[in-house]
Formats: sequence, C-alpha cells, structure tokens
Amino acid sequence: MNPSGTYLLGLDLGGTRLKAIALNPAGLELARETAPTSGDDWQDQVRRCVTGMVSRLGPPLAIGVAAPGLAAADERAITFMPGRLPGLEGLDWTKFLESPTPVPVINDAHAALLGEVWLGAANGMRDVILLTLGTGVGGAILSDGRLLRGHLGRAGHLGHLTVNADGPLDIVNTPGSLEDAVGNHSISVRSHGSHTSTAALVADVLRGDAAATAVWKRTIRDLAAGIVSLINILDPEAVLLGGGIAEAGDALFIPLAAELDHLEWRPGGHRVRLIHASLGDWAGAHGAAARALEIHLTPS
Amino acid sequence: MNPSGTYLLGLDLGGTRLKAIALNPAGLELARETAPTSGDDWQDQVRRCVTGMVSRLGPPLAIGVAAPGLAAADERAITFMPGRLPGLEGLDWTKFLESPTPVPVINDAHAALLGEVWLGAANGMRDVILLTLGTGVGGAILSDGRLLRGHLGRAGHLGHLTVNADGPLDIVNTPGSLEDAVGNHSISVRSHGSHTSTAALVADVLRGDAAATAVWKRTIRDLAAGIVSLINILDPEAVLLGGGIAEAGDALFIPLAAELDHLEWRPGGHRVRLIHASLGDWAGAHGAAARALEIHLTPS
Repeated sequence: MNPSGTYLLGLDLGGTRLKAIALNPAGLELARETAPTSGDDWQDQVRRCVTGMVSRLGPPLAIGVAAPGLAAADERAITFMPGRLPGLEGLDWTKFLESPTPVPVINDAHAALLGEVWLGAANGMRDVILLTLGTGVGGAILSDGRLLRGHLGRAGHLGHLTVNADGPLDIVNTPGSLEDAVGNHSISVRSHGSHTSTAALVADVLRGDAAATAVWKRTIRDLAAGIVSLINILDPEAVLLGGGIAEAGDALFIPLAAELDHLEWRPGGHRVRLIHASLGDWAGAHGAAARALEIHLTPS
Repeated sequence: MNPSGTYLLGLDLGGTRLKAIALNPAGLELARETAPTSGDDWQDQVRRCVTGMVSRLGPPLAIGVAAPGLAAADERAITFMPGRLPGLEGLDWTKFLESPTPVPVINDAHAALLGEVWLGAANGMRDVILLTLGTGVGGAILSDGRLLRGHLGRAGHLGHLTVNADGPLDIVNTPGSLEDAVGNHSISVRSHGSHTSTAALVADVLRGDAAATAVWKRTIRDLAAGIVSLINILDPEAVLLGGGIAEAGDALFIPLAAELDHLEWRPGGHRVRLIHASLGDWAGAHGAAARALEIHLTPS
C-alpha cells in the first residue's frame, strides 16, 4: 500500500500509445502503464489508464503531461497540433483529468530533456541540448537551468535547421533541413532506394559496404554540421543524442566524434560532451513527472 | 552640474575605439565620448576617457563594459579573446577602473541586444534575437527576458551556423557558415572579385546589374535559411538585423521578407517580425549601461 499523495504521475501522450509512469519525488519508479491512443477514443483510453493507476496507487501528489505540438505559455493546453490526436488542441488537462492541482502540459521533446536532466544522462546539467534522431529529428534546449520555450512554445525544433540551403523544403518549409538529412523518414531517398531503415543501412556499413558507407558518411557530416551550429548558437556543456538512430551506438558516435574534431569550435581547447540519452522511449513520461514536481515545489 | 551618482556609464570596447556613454536611469543621454584603442596603450586611453567623464559628470551610479570575446560567468572579466586588445583576457574591470561597485563585463554582441531591448527597436520584448551583419556576422539571444550566455559565454554566435554543409570551414571551423555567406569580409570571393564591399554590390543591384543581383540573391537566400533555422530553434517574436549590411534598408528587407514568405514556419499563420536595429554603433555602449543598471537594481 502506498500512502496517498506520495508520487508524481507522468503521462506521455503519443500518436499510437500513452505511456504513464508513477515516480516518487526522489525519482524511484513505482509503476508504469501504457494504453493505445491511435483510435478516436484516445481520450477515454487516457482517462481509463489514469483512473486505474490512481485506484491502485492512491491520488498522486501531482500530474504532468507531455504531448506533441506547441504548448500554451500557461501550460494548461496544447495550442497547436494539426493532424493527429483530434481534440488535443485546446484540451484543458486539469479539467479533463479532474485534477485538484494544476496539470502542466508541455511539448514531448521538451519533456524528454527534462526527464534526462532529472533522472537520465544529463542529470544535474544546466546547459544541455537534446537531439532526438528518429523518424524525424526533434529536440529541446536547457539554458542556465531553464527550458527554452520561446514566444509560441516552438523553441527546440532542432530538426528544422538548414544544413544545405539549396536543398528541398522540409515539412515546415526549412530548406535542406537536418531532419531531412538525418531522419529515418528520408532514408529511402537518401540511399537512392537501397535501404528502408537507418538500422539496415548501419548494418551494411558494419559489413563494409561502400555504398552504404557513403550514405552514412553524408548523414554524419550533416549531423555534425547541425551539432556545431547548435553549439555555436547555444553553447551547451553537452549534446544528448536520443531516438532510434542513436541506438546505432559506436557506429554513430565514433565517426561523429571524429567529424566534430574537425568542425567544432573549441575555445581554449574546451570540447562539448556528446552523450547517449539514457531514458529511451520513457524520457517524456519522466519529464512530465519532473515538470509536475517542479511546479508542486514552486511557492505559489 | 549633474548631482553625483545619477547616471550609468556604459563602455563599449572595440579594437579601434572605445565608445563611452552616460545615460540617466530613464535612458536619457547625458554625454558620449570616444577614445582610440588600436595602440598598445589602450588601457591608458580607456582609463583617461573614464576619468574625464567622471570629473565632468561626477561619480556614476554604476559602470558596465561591453567587450569582444567570451565573458566569465561572474562577469568580472573577458576570459577568451585571442589576437586583439592584448591584456584584455583576464582583466578585472572592477579593479582596473577602481570602481566602488562591481563593473559587469559582457560580450559586445550580447550588450548590443540588451541596448536594443532597453532603448532601441526591441524595446520591451522578451523573446528576440539580434543578427549583426557587418564584416562578420554576430548576434545574441534573449529568451523569456533573459540573455542566453551558455556554458562558456559563447551563446549567440549566430554567424557560426552552417547554411551549406559542404562549404569551406570558417574562422571557427564551421562548414559553409552564415558569416562566410553574408559577412562583408567574404564579398570579394562571393562576387568573384567584382565587388569589394556589400554597399557597392547593393548599389549595382539597385542599378539593375544582373551579375550583382545574382550574388545578392544568393546572399539573401543563405541569410533567410539562417534566419528560419534560428526561428525554429529559438522561436523569437522578432528578429533584429543590425550592422552595416542592414543599412541597405529596403534592398535587403524587401527581398528577405519575400524569401521568408517561402521558408518560414508560421504555426497558425503567426509570422515573426523582421526589424532593423535602431541604436547603430552605439548599441553596445547602451547595453553595457543597461546591464550595469540591471545589477544596480538587483537586491543583493
């Protein structure tokens, strides 16, 4: 039996599933659950999952939500998220979950970074950026201990920076973007049809295939160019790499570090750390709980 | 006669001259002076200029300094500035100026943005970036009302972001950087030797010269790619353009705005404002005074 009100409930809403985690204020995991969200009944699924956890664990100290899209400055709702998860835009999560305490909603990539800073590979850092390398490329920025949100909640869309100004426009019109140069969604185009996943490409690179190696080198060059741009703009102490492509491990990190040896500005010899994110798919749920805790601890 | 202690003294140290300005706490200008700094005796020149102003205006409420290079986190000194202004690295400005109150030292581009936010074109804004387009390209970032410094004081080096990953490395090893694509230092290379200044190039563009127009269009495309990258990374409400190249006025701002119509991500139709910085060469001195005032007003 958990005494009531001793845990944080972190929810990470994705287009296919909800991840829910219960953590005590020291970060110890008490429970995790998932629920499907691809149907039109996603709101019912979310409510049922939360109700189930609360009935088992008692009422939470506070709840936090991570979701795709741009979050309102007051963190009550996602204000901009076209396409997926109908009904998410404008949904007031405090009311929706009938919570006695405010339920902050933050962007899922922002949440992932907060999770990594609280309990993952960026623990205790104050200046750090996260790049998530998956189907697309996303990210988030912590500067002097604060998450950057920007004017519309858009800050940290690190996939949408140009690495080749003459390239085709990406999904938000950025020419030759980092997302199109590195994200798994474009691997078929970038490999001229020879590969349908980055994992398969990397497997061929490890077997010594010359054509695959050329594609991978191009990918790593563009990623390195994006990373040094972000280093010069934001001056982090570390760059965290997460997402499925970061699972390539040494096949990514070693040639990338070598490229950074050529391209990174290192004042006085100072080198920015390159680190593999450690919380995986559950970083966003951890970060949602982290944000809920942060608000809970802030004097009102 | 000014009563003593009623003005802020802002110093902007450049490689050729010092700019010194006296402003009252409401931003009214009381005096400005310059002194040469290209000689080995630049420290004597600075001290003489300050002593002269103090003897005329009385002791200042507080003094602030803007200087090239990376500033220490405690703002007592510039920690990294190779090449110019020998003796600047490590110089403790509070001691050097024998000031009874701490003298903050900040990076000159950071100062320029603080100046524009206090008394210039970005007055009152909380999320804004400054790009200075001159010999090189520099900049600074204000996010949620705070100047971004980063881990080493390097944040805001906006000229050193890649716009063409296959391009040659710039002065800090960034491939195909915005600085090399736009800065006046590379105009001779970019125009294939036909022009030695951006001002001359723009004059030919205005006369309808086709070759000059092609170079200018290339410059504007790269600048637009850099700006949309920064918008997606930082999500400002406005982008401020300063420096000599911004003096091109409509010849820059109109085609740049047209390019941004194609390349800018505008969630819900929201468009980031593009604004000409208004304080010119004196923005840094204003910002040094702004920082001094800010510290003066902070409860210790």
